[in-house]
Amino acid sequence: MGFEEMWAALLPVGRDPAGGGYRRFTWTPPELECRAWFLDEARVRGFDVERDRNGNLVAWWYPDGADRSAEGVLTGSHLDSVPGGGAYDGPLGVVSAFAAIDLLRERGVRPSRPIGVGAFAEEEGARFGVACLGSRLLTGTIDPGRARRLTDADGRTFADVAAENGLDPDAIGPDEEILGRIGCYVELHVEQGRALTEPVGVASSIVPHGRWRFDFAGEGNHAGTTRITDRHDPMLPFAIMVIAARQAAERHGALATVGKVRVTPGGVNAIPSHVAAWLDGRGPVDDAVRRTVADISEDARVAAGAHGVTLDVAEESYTEVVGLDLDLRDRVVKALGGAPVLPTGAGHDAGILASRLPTAMLFVRNPTGVSHAPSEHAELDDCLAGVEALATVLKDLAGG
Amino acid sequence: MGFEEMWAALLPVGRDPAGGGYRRFTWTPPELECRAWFLDEARVRGFDVERDRNGNLVAWWYPDGADRSAEGVLTGSHLDSVPGGGAYDGPLGVVSAFAAIDLLRERGVRPSRPIGVGAFAEEEGARFGVACLGSRLLTGTIDPGRARRLTDADGRTFADVAAENGLDPDAIGPDEEILGRIGCYVELHVEQGRALTEPVGVASSIVPHGRWRFDFAGEGNHAGTTRITDRHDPMLPFAIMVIAARQAAERHGALATVGKVRVTPGGVNAIPSHVAAWLDGRGPVDDAVRRTVADISEDARVAAGAHGVTLDVAEESYTEVVGLDLDLRDRVVKALGGAPVLPTGAGHDAGILASRLPTAMLFVRNPTGVSHAPSEHAELDDCLAGVEALATVLKDLAGG
Repeated sequence: MGFEEMWAALLPVGRDPAGGGYRRFTWTPPELECRAWFLDEARVRGFDVERDRNGNLVAWWYPDGADRSAEGVLTGSHLDSVPGGGAYDGPLGVVSAFAAIDLLRERGVRPSRPIGVGAFAEEEGARFGVACLGSRLLTGTIDPGRARRLTDADGRTFADVAAENGLDPDAIGPDEEILGRIGCYVELHVEQGRALTEPVGVASSIVPHGRWRFDFAGEGNHAGTTRITDRHDPMLPFAIMVIAARQAAERHGALATVGKVRVTPGGVNAIPSHVAAWLDGRGPVDDAVRRTVADISEDARVAAGAHGVTLDVAEESYTEVVGLDLDLRDRVVKALGGAPVLPTGAGHDAGILASRLPTAMLFVRNPTGVSHAPSEHAELDDCLAGVEALATVLKDLAGG
Repeated sequence: MGFEEMWAALLPVGRDPAGGGYRRFTWTPPELECRAWFLDEARVRGFDVERDRNGNLVAWWYPDGADRSAEGVLTGSHLDSVPGGGAYDGPLGVVSAFAAIDLLRERGVRPSRPIGVGAFAEEEGARFGVACLGSRLLTGTIDPGRARRLTDADGRTFADVAAENGLDPDAIGPDEEILGRIGCYVELHVEQGRALTEPVGVASSIVPHGRWRFDFAGEGNHAGTTRITDRHDPMLPFAIMVIAARQAAERHGALATVGKVRVTPGGVNAIPSHVAAWLDGRGPVDDAVRRTVADISEDARVAAGAHGVTLDVAEESYTEVVGLDLDLRDRVVKALGGAPVLPTGAGHDAGILASRLPTAMLFVRNPTGVSHAPSEHAELDDCLAGVEALATVLKDLAGG
């Protein structure tokens, strides 16, 4: 199957028929369907499939005559989505990986090293709250005990859901054996801003980014009979926190977004007892993010105090600036005969794997810059240019 | 069964084992269990049960020798709850109704008119969004077409859910035949503020109250790659609307509460495309509520414009001040040998029925004033005093 056929096969999976985008949460039926698609694509090509202990998938191509014990070149991305996400974020990298290997095989290229296609679990963190959970577990950058206790919106733990899906929850965590067989990782991804004006670019770094949970606990009561002076309404300090987030981000040249809120009990005629809100914070340097989050926390704390509401702020994840491997980046740019080099504000599994392996990223142009939304798009010609570029890079790295 | 046995039977139904209160949404399993309990209580007493065309239940006691064609005295309340609600709001009135009739029968009272126990559907509006939906349909104060199109959180229409529960959705609406058989309505309810310092009081009026839906439509995008100047984030004007609601309420001596919010798509790392928020507004006079809502709408509209977000405000329901029937109120107070008379900030089916019938309300003291929350409470002695008072009033009105 060529790029377009593979793309068409994935396109309907988990898509809202009313135009609301994709919902492919880890281990839900649409995401399991994407995994089944992955296994089929690996099988028809004769690749060796490896399911690791953390829910990640890798399909290995061992070219004829290649040294099976040599460190392989891994490419790929992820198959899960944010709620209401686009078609490209994740799947483009996986489909392009299979398509790039197909190009090498059609052209009779015989790499001397294995090439693997990876699909990392829970990259978006949309189900269990921690982004890049699969690659974090694999590389040991999250405590397995903490991962086991993460819960989804229904209150089910990662441990329970993982067990239901054939994993041993007691065995999750870093896997040196698998890591030892990977020489480097190259991830192709749709660009998520408008900074890339050529079809394909190369990443310099991933900016610092993290997630913080703000829990405002007040006192639930009747909306029609509770005097204003008797209220401890957590919605008020939450609202001030939303406004403080924008102001602090502007002040420090960072980004701060509140995209997820949970109000308890959520009745029209009831003062809430509790508001949980999640803050996504990013910035060009660690200091900008740290100052932004500190300012928001301080403003929220003052507002909560003024309303007789308690506030608890917890850092759910934080990744410092990730400078991708300079030598590998230069080699990739050289293999492509030159390419624009740009940083990205989005987190990626490549940023997590970078703590253990040389990693690089290729970006495919996004004409509108829209991402994490149904209208996320890349032109077909640009996608095919991405496949070409990835094939060129894999050939170079795997010694074709 | 006496008051305490009936109360104990309902207590576990739909209660969150973790202490989060009750969730008895119309036609969900816990509310259906409450309805089954109601039918059992009616059956063991030999009452005639009438299921009207709108999902309301009435159980009629025709005393020996009473004139079956005389206009009856209706008492009762509702069985549904807000999310995370208390045990008393609604069920106290229904349980007290059965218990009060039991007292009359034990004492050999033989009323000359029928006495009915009513349980009105969807009083809280927690499932379909319009409070007092059952009594509104019965009295013709909501258009049946609009009611049919109301949807629950899963997008299911009232028409479909009603049909599933044995109603003919094309037949919902005002029912003159049933209304013609009711002479007056007396509802007993737990007081929802701290204004009542004696065990039992009588209502003077229900303050004006309504619900408005604010829809902020922006542009979904990636939280990490979209520059602040490129954002159309609906969370920002929503936050300003929450703050404006409190300020406007204070300015006009009214109450304004935002207790329900729906964020789309709701991902941590996605700028929302849409925020829907519900405003509950109340005040001592119509003008205070109208000015409060107008000010909030204006502030929200300005904020939305500044963020490139569109705003749509829709009035979902509004009930002007309801002065309960003066003659009936005086008669009730006299029958009780005097009682404190007080207004209520909460809406009730009695307020809806007041448009067609003389209605009155009895309140049972609430020591903390908390309502629409798990800790809502009334002392048993006060509840039993409420049953006594209701029996006295029913005897007087039904000519015992």
